[in-house]
Amino acid sequence: MDLLAEFPELAKKGGKVLLVVLDGVGGLPRNPGGETELAAARTPNLDALAREAALGLFTPVAPGITPGSGPGHLSLFGYDPFRYRVGRGVLSALGIGVRLGPGDVAVRGNLATLDESGRVKDRRAGRPSTEENRRVLEKIAARVKEIEGVRVELYPESEHRFVLVLRGEGLGDAVSDTDPQQVGVLPREAVARDEASAKTARVLNRFVELAREALKDEPRINGVLLRGVSKRPDFPRLPELLGLKAAALASYPMYRGLAELVGMEPLNIPELEEDPDRPRGKLVALKEAWDDYDLFYLHFKKTDTAGEDGNFEEKVRRIELFDGLLPELLALSPDVLVITGDHSTPAVMRSHSWHPVPLLLKGPYLRSDLAARFTEDEAARGSLGHLVGPVVMPLALAHAGWLGKYGA
Amino acid sequence: MDLLAEFPELAKKGGKVLLVVLDGVGGLPRNPGGETELAAARTPNLDALAREAALGLFTPVAPGITPGSGPGHLSLFGYDPFRYRVGRGVLSALGIGVRLGPGDVAVRGNLATLDESGRVKDRRAGRPSTEENRRVLEKIAARVKEIEGVRVELYPESEHRFVLVLRGEGLGDAVSDTDPQQVGVLPREAVARDEASAKTARVLNRFVELAREALKDEPRINGVLLRGVSKRPDFPRLPELLGLKAAALASYPMYRGLAELVGMEPLNIPELEEDPDRPRGKLVALKEAWDDYDLFYLHFKKTDTAGEDGNFEEKVRRIELFDGLLPELLALSPDVLVITGDHSTPAVMRSHSWHPVPLLLKGPYLRSDLAARFTEDEAARGSLGHLVGPVVMPLALAHAGWLGKYGA
Repeated sequence: MDLLAEFPELAKKGGKVLLVVLDGVGGLPRNPGGETELAAARTPNLDALAREAALGLFTPVAPGITPGSGPGHLSLFGYDPFRYRVGRGVLSALGIGVRLGPGDVAVRGNLATLDESGRVKDRRAGRPSTEENRRVLEKIAARVKEIEGVRVELYPESEHRFVLVLRGEGLGDAVSDTDPQQVGVLPREAVARDEASAKTARVLNRFVELAREALKDEPRINGVLLRGVSKRPDFPRLPELLGLKAAALASYPMYRGLAELVGMEPLNIPELEEDPDRPRGKLVALKEAWDDYDLFYLHFKKTDTAGEDGNFEEKVRRIELFDGLLPELLALSPDVLVITGDHSTPAVMRSHSWHPVPLLLKGPYLRSDLAARFTEDEAARGSLGHLVGPVVMPLALAHAGWLGKYGA
Repeated sequence: MDLLAEFPELAKKGGKVLLVVLDGVGGLPRNPGGETELAAARTPNLDALAREAALGLFTPVAPGITPGSGPGHLSLFGYDPFRYRVGRGVLSALGIGVRLGPGDVAVRGNLATLDESGRVKDRRAGRPSTEENRRVLEKIAARVKEIEGVRVELYPESEHRFVLVLRGEGLGDAVSDTDPQQVGVLPREAVARDEASAKTARVLNRFVELAREALKDEPRINGVLLRGVSKRPDFPRLPELLGLKAAALASYPMYRGLAELVGMEPLNIPELEEDPDRPRGKLVALKEAWDDYDLFYLHFKKTDTAGEDGNFEEKVRRIELFDGLLPELLALSPDVLVITGDHSTPAVMRSHSWHPVPLLLKGPYLRSDLAARFTEDEAARGSLGHLVGPVVMPLALAHAGWLGKYGA
């Protein structure tokens, strides 16, 4: 069942919705029975809000499934991440802000070390520095500009990662990976799974050859492994489904790109001095755009970054910083305010996790609720219960009046 | 996944189930933190029952989705409302008690105002009185009795609404609406989406023409808009799936019709003097039929009506009236008793809503439960948790012994 498919029939005019995503905000205690990052944080504003809001827990994808940023956000936007899939290549391109046209193909690449017989020795070429990455990519780019009339673009990511973009005519994306995902074996041929993708496979195989030639004198980085051959998916656009205008306030390209995939407009965030992370810039942009949109997605990244770094105290500090911004958000008086995360990133795990995240909903049609703080434990006692899958957006839209009755 | 499809494999003989539906019983407080209708009601019998029953919350369709009576009831009966769809025309026909044979087509109609150029000026013709509705429908009916050998029947609903039924041979229902759902544009042609529906489309387009001719001297109601062209769906029948007998005790045609769609027998409700709403008539009929059926669906409408009217006190009173009847239901000693709603209808919203409804289950195999009253807040603490979708019926049937082990 895809609720999105029902939206056009249900659509009616509603009020303003502000969806705040504290990336990876869910956490774990450092010691059994101890406080999570949210519980350890001093959050007087969030506490006051929690007492008059409805809380619950939210599992973005499914129990036991650790969401990447893509699926976590798609779920928040109302898109079932099992139905609405974004290829690895496209996600990587979004992540570094590379724009993709409808005919372009994006591929995630690894710089790799191959042995004398061409077998994979190290799938990550010893994790080179990003400068090293740049240097060898330029070497490849100097050698390969076009294949069969298809433009070949290379973009470095961190360490061994890069993105390959093909722009040209007649490029399908049903092509297998060349990355064998193990060492001691030969890289695979790219194989087309349908006729429309035959050219893409040929171009990729030729690219791999040319890259090896370009890197033949390199001591360590002498091959490339490709995976996630994909085109920008053509998702239904939330604003069109409901007749609303939606804006995204996010700095990182990945989140701006994901928001764009579902039809939100990523707004420019002004860079303010002494505000390198631009949370204040986002507030400035939000206030300026407030009258022009119905739905706002406001993203804060650093809670996740601190969690990934295993820095419990820094994650606590980032939560407290958000708490300080909260009064300005409340002053905008959104009809519905949602605060949650796209997944948990417990500092003790130094990674995303499958744990549910706290969900807070403030709106005009709430029942009473016992949860007194925006923490994992309190949210578990909240009146929204434990929500699973892409239901936060429908719930927020319903509270704001955008969804009419289903069936007579 | 459709649990119904598994029922025949699982079926075994069980005990008596009584499913009580207090229509739209879920509510909201009038002021933040205040009491809902259920919390405000004095319900000593329900309170006592709640202490020895299991409670939970129930979202009939999906979070954020406001169920119409059709989807809400289908969910209660165990039918996924996204899989088992009832067309708008058929629902309207059920709602006024018009019987449909398997070949008949039902259409929901609006009396409308068109401007000189034939464009839609008012989709509801200024919401005429029901008497006015009757008068113009008779005018159309006098002009149109049959088209291409197809019998054309017209039934007034309230205000601008009517039901059109076509009875004849070779009528498909894959036909688009003529209602453009907006003003300032021409009504659409009815278009067949398959060959089997070509005749239906022709008949409907001819009907629209003839109706305009019949109404050409009317100052305000001078056109008709049609939508929801549909035939009675052929659902699997719950009683046949499980080898049980099921009876429906409901007064309103809509609910009798919905129960019939899933294979329940709507029983005659005696009209007793000084009991215009017939709650007591339903009890008389229930007691009389008690030995002859396994599953009983008992419907009370007025909680919803009071909610739709925005009448908090009247909804409270209706809940209290039901509480007064409860001892008689308990005296029948059903093996499993379920009390819930098909959706919420908070008086403060004057409409159906997406909020979950309390669910009470009394049976022989219960765990302990903290919920002490049949209210939204208490139900949120209940041992059944928060159930979403068409799972109340399987749960009730399991408790009564109708469902055997799935898999060895």
